[in-house]
Amino acid sequence: MHDIAKRILQGEVRGAARAITCIENDYPERTQILREIFPYTGRAKRIGITGTPGAGKSSLVDALIGFLREQDLKVGVAAVDPTSPFTGGALLGDRVRMQNHALDSGVFIRSMGTRGSLGGLSRKTKDAVRVMDAFGCDVVLIETVGVGQSELDVMNIADTTIVVLTPGGGDTVQAFKAGIMEIADLFVINKADLPGADKLQTEVEQMLDLAKHDAAWRPPIVRTVSTRRLGLEQLWEQVERHHAYLQASGEWGLRRSRRLQEEVLEIVSQRMQQVVRERLAAGSYADQLAAVAAGEADPYSAAEEIVRRLFAGDREPGK
Amino acid sequence: MHDIAKRILQGEVRGAARAITCIENDYPERTQILREIFPYTGRAKRIGITGTPGAGKSSLVDALIGFLREQDLKVGVAAVDPTSPFTGGALLGDRVRMQNHALDSGVFIRSMGTRGSLGGLSRKTKDAVRVMDAFGCDVVLIETVGVGQSELDVMNIADTTIVVLTPGGGDTVQAFKAGIMEIADLFVINKADLPGADKLQTEVEQMLDLAKHDAAWRPPIVRTVSTRRLGLEQLWEQVERHHAYLQASGEWGLRRSRRLQEEVLEIVSQRMQQVVRERLAAGSYADQLAAVAAGEADPYSAAEEIVRRLFAGDREPGK
Repeated sequence: MHDIAKRILQGEVRGAARAITCIENDYPERTQILREIFPYTGRAKRIGITGTPGAGKSSLVDALIGFLREQDLKVGVAAVDPTSPFTGGALLGDRVRMQNHALDSGVFIRSMGTRGSLGGLSRKTKDAVRVMDAFGCDVVLIETVGVGQSELDVMNIADTTIVVLTPGGGDTVQAFKAGIMEIADLFVINKADLPGADKLQTEVEQMLDLAKHDAAWRPPIVRTVSTRRLGLEQLWEQVERHHAYLQASGEWGLRRSRRLQEEVLEIVSQRMQQVVRERLAAGSYADQLAAVAAGEADPYSAAEEIVRRLFAGDREPGK
Repeated sequence: MHDIAKRILQGEVRGAARAITCIENDYPERTQILREIFPYTGRAKRIGITGTPGAGKSSLVDALIGFLREQDLKVGVAAVDPTSPFTGGALLGDRVRMQNHALDSGVFIRSMGTRGSLGGLSRKTKDAVRVMDAFGCDVVLIETVGVGQSELDVMNIADTTIVVLTPGGGDTVQAFKAGIMEIADLFVINKADLPGADKLQTEVEQMLDLAKHDAAWRPPIVRTVSTRRLGLEQLWEQVERHHAYLQASGEWGLRRSRRLQEEVLEIVSQRMQQVVRERLAAGSYADQLAAVAAGEADPYSAAEEIVRRLFAGDREPGK
């Protein structure tokens, strides 16, 4: 067993941190580590937390960590930040608040950025969540900015997805637009002490009347004021209730095995891209790319030729 | 030449619409069509318009269409809507406004959703823009909700990217968070008649002082009130100035050939995924997937085995 895998299973925080660094940077050892910890995963509750920017997700996560720690639960947080494609850096202003928990060994927080990855953020987040699971976290919170497709993809690993809204600002319509209403298992109206909370609740109820959702589970709406730590108990109660529902209906097992199968395809696709990039770096297909850059060939024909060679056992003449 | 390709090049609107339907639904003829129209593309100015939800992008696009039509320019619009992964439908409330131009044959508007696609929205939008280019559009506006990674990917095809902000609402910080500030070639402060426009402009200037951007091009800031059609001339002037800058610096050609090369890889990767899915549908790899679903194998090992078979000329024993 890889040393890092061993350290994760022993609950060593630096082992887990190191593993996620391997995942983020596509280090070759990541596959062995993930393969070896896999049998020790599946125990953690995975809670997705998403919502439009400004809905107060970070402070809700912060409050929730505090609440879960009071129950002596070990908490992992994967905060997904779609960062700049150019500098690779994120301005993590509100992550600072999470440092409330920096000295608590029962809390493991990691920001996942798009650094160096090619649309692989969702894949990497899933792997990081698995590390936190094997590391012994009872609950893993997956926080995303939640408006784009890649954020929706991330939510595919959550057992329970919480959509956070706030009164005012036309949140519901915008959230609907972004397609996140339909992935909600649970709604939170945060900043519920602001005017408009009743109106927002009515709007969400109306949307739920219209929307398709599982007939046996109508997403409940919970009100919180995360800055004053109000409503957290009710929120967690509903999370537990959703978990019990998933278990009782058999949906829990179905979701997990369906998602595992999807993951296989995702990993296959990622690996194939990697193979192509390695071969490109080694100078393969240089002729095709140069012809496209020079405007002498179209990208569709060039791509087809590359695919043809790849699947033809990839034995290139004269290379 | 495919009949649809011919009709696009003749400027027949239903041919163009049909081609985009083929692209959206992955119909097999799309590759032939795209290959055949490719030599007739590259003439249209591609303008990306992005910004946080609620910034008034749709009304700005609407106003800009009107402005460009007054100069007798033919305009294409690709409105990118990240829609629900479940129902595949978008609530296109604000698209309704665009129907202002529904009877104008010089305007071609198409909403691109994620319907049925697997993260392929960015790829499909690029292909749709190419259809509009070949169809004879002088300008193609690419509008996105613009907060997720896939929206940033879409912006890779724009020659000029406009980031739309509005006074109030902490827009700049949120925009920075989403990494869209750094892809801006040009900022628009829309709804500039609202209080706070000066403050917002100062904030953006300060961020520009801090941010990395091309030394020879500092993104200008233009104020508009799209509902009253104010500032459009100034906006377009800056777009033209950016275009002239790209041309003069040689950046224009460099960008286009770099992006064409990236597109080749994207198409290769898309095609490979398709091959894998086809083989899965035909029952290949069923053993691996069943083992993963049953918890008998981990997804990493299963994926590796599938990749091994794929690149081994994919001759499966006994299948």
